[in-house]
Amino acid sequence: MNGIVTTVVTLPARYRADVASRDHGDPGDAPSVPPPLTAVVDATRPSAAEEARSIAASTNTATLASLTATGDPWASFVTYGLLDGQPVLCVSNMAEHGRNLAGDPRASLAIVAPTTETDPLASGRITLAGVAERPTGDEARAARDAHLAAVAAAKYYVDYSDFTLWVLRVHRVRWVGGYGRMDSATAQDYAAATADPVRPQAAGAIAHLNADHAESLVAMARALGGYPDTTAAVCTGVDRYGLDLRVDTPRGTGYTRVGFGGPLSSADELRSASVELVKRARGAGH
Amino acid sequence: MNGIVTTVVTLPARYRADVASRDHGDPGDAPSVPPPLTAVVDATRPSAAEEARSIAASTNTATLASLTATGDPWASFVTYGLLDGQPVLCVSNMAEHGRNLAGDPRASLAIVAPTTETDPLASGRITLAGVAERPTGDEARAARDAHLAAVAAAKYYVDYSDFTLWVLRVHRVRWVGGYGRMDSATAQDYAAATADPVRPQAAGAIAHLNADHAESLVAMARALGGYPDTTAAVCTGVDRYGLDLRVDTPRGTGYTRVGFGGPLSSADELRSASVELVKRARGAGH
Repeated sequence: MNGIVTTVVTLPARYRADVASRDHGDPGDAPSVPPPLTAVVDATRPSAAEEARSIAASTNTATLASLTATGDPWASFVTYGLLDGQPVLCVSNMAEHGRNLAGDPRASLAIVAPTTETDPLASGRITLAGVAERPTGDEARAARDAHLAAVAAAKYYVDYSDFTLWVLRVHRVRWVGGYGRMDSATAQDYAAATADPVRPQAAGAIAHLNADHAESLVAMARALGGYPDTTAAVCTGVDRYGLDLRVDTPRGTGYTRVGFGGPLSSADELRSASVELVKRARGAGH
Repeated sequence: MNGIVTTVVTLPARYRADVASRDHGDPGDAPSVPPPLTAVVDATRPSAAEEARSIAASTNTATLASLTATGDPWASFVTYGLLDGQPVLCVSNMAEHGRNLAGDPRASLAIVAPTTETDPLASGRITLAGVAERPTGDEARAARDAHLAAVAAAKYYVDYSDFTLWVLRVHRVRWVGGYGRMDSATAQDYAAATADPVRPQAAGAIAHLNADHAESLVAMARALGGYPDTTAAVCTGVDRYGLDLRVDTPRGTGYTRVGFGGPLSSADELRSASVELVKRARGAGH
C-alpha cells in the first residue's frame, strides 16, 4: 500500500529524492546523487492516496475545472470543505462555474498544499477528477456542515437561494509531491486513506529537530538511513511514517528516510517516536 | 473604459463596496450601507481588463484547465510567465496536461492574486480562456525568455526535449475582485491594458497611510469622497487611479473612493499624488 512512487520528472540533484528516474532528454549537466552504502532500515512513505488526502485536508481553496456549454474547459477559483475526502463546493448558479456544473457534471479540482518553498513546482499538489452531484437528505446536511466547517464566511451565503452545494464524486486522483515524486491513486484507495495526522505539526517539528537535534539526525542517517558516511543531516519532511533527511557525505549530498517502524496515529506521538528513533540509531551504532 | 463594474453577488455590509447590487434571495438580515451625502469627486476605478492584467502580473502560479482525450475537464497546477499579458506555460509532454494541450488546444487559466485576507473569497482572481499555441521563431525566443524571467527554476528543464512552451491566446477574460466586484473583459481590452504600476507597492502604502495619515484620510473622505460626516477613515486599497476608503459615520460604515484625477504611471508618484489629494481635500474643506 505504501512506498510505491513512480518518477516522471528528473531534475538536478537538489530536487532528487531516493526514487528511480526516467529519462527526460537530460542535457547531461545534472550532478549525480550518491547512493546509500548500507540498507535503509525503513523507507516507508505515505502512499499516493494518503498524500492526496493530506493535501486535500491542508487548505480550503482550490481551482475547479468545469465545462462550458460548448465543452470548453473553464478554470475558476473555489472554496471547499471535505466530506470523507470528497470536496464539497458551494457556488452560485449565477456564476459561470455554477452554470457549467448544472449543464455538465464532469469536473476536476486542483488543490495546492500551502508551502514556504520559493520554487512553486517543489510543492505538493493534487488533481481530483470525477462528477459533481447535488447531495440530498442526510448527505446534504453533512455536506453543508462540512463546507461551513472549512469556509467560515460561507455562513453569509450558503442559504441564499441561488447557491448550490456540490459534492465531487472522486473517480480519479493524481498526486504530485514535487519534482520527481508523483503517482496516481484509485478512487477506492483515496476513499480508504486518511489525511496524515502529523503533517499539520510538521513545520514546527522540522524546525525543532534541525535546531536542537542535529547530532541525532546524523546518527539516524548513519545507522538507519543507509549513509554511514554522513557528516551532516537536515530534516526536510515529517509524516506519520518517518522523517525525510538530506545528508551531506564526502561523496556529495544524498536523500534518505528514517521510518518510525509503523504509522503514528497522532502528532502527540511525534516526540516519543523521535526519541525511539534516536535510541535505535545509537544502539545500532554500537 | 474605467469604472464599469457589474455586481452579481451581494453580501453583508463588510463586503459591500460602492457598487449596485442584485438580488440573491437575500434572507433579509444584511445590514444596510449608508450612501454618500455629497458627490464623489473622482470615483474612477481600474477597468476589468486592467484588474485582470494586474492580477496576471502579481504571481507566477496558476491552475490550468485542459481537456482529456474524452473531453473531461482536467485542473492542474502550473507556473507561467507573461508575454504581453499572454500566459506562457512550460509543461512536459509526459504530464497529463501536456498531453491534453497537444490533443485539444482549448484551455483556460485561473490565477489568484496573493493575499493576506483570511476570507479567501475576498481576494482577486481571474480566468483567462482561449487556445494554447506553440510559439515559433522570434515569439518562441520571447516566450522562453518570458517564462524564465518569471520562473527561475525553469532553467533546469526548459531545454529538456519533452518540455514544450505554450502561449495561451486569450479570447475571454473574467475578473472577480472579491465579493460583489466582478466583470468580463474582451480580449482586445485585455491586450491593450497594462498591469497597475502602483499595486506592487500597495501594501506598504496602505500601511503607511493608515499609520501616519489617519486625519488626512478623514479629510479626503469628507471633502472628496462624498461622506462629510466621516468620523474615521481607513485606506483599504491603492491603485494607479486612487484610494479605496472605508469610512465610519454616525449612519454606519460606508465605502468610497478618492481619485488622483488621472492615472499614475509609477509607484514613485504615489507620495506626491497623496500629498496633492490632501491639499485638495483641505482646500475644499475651507
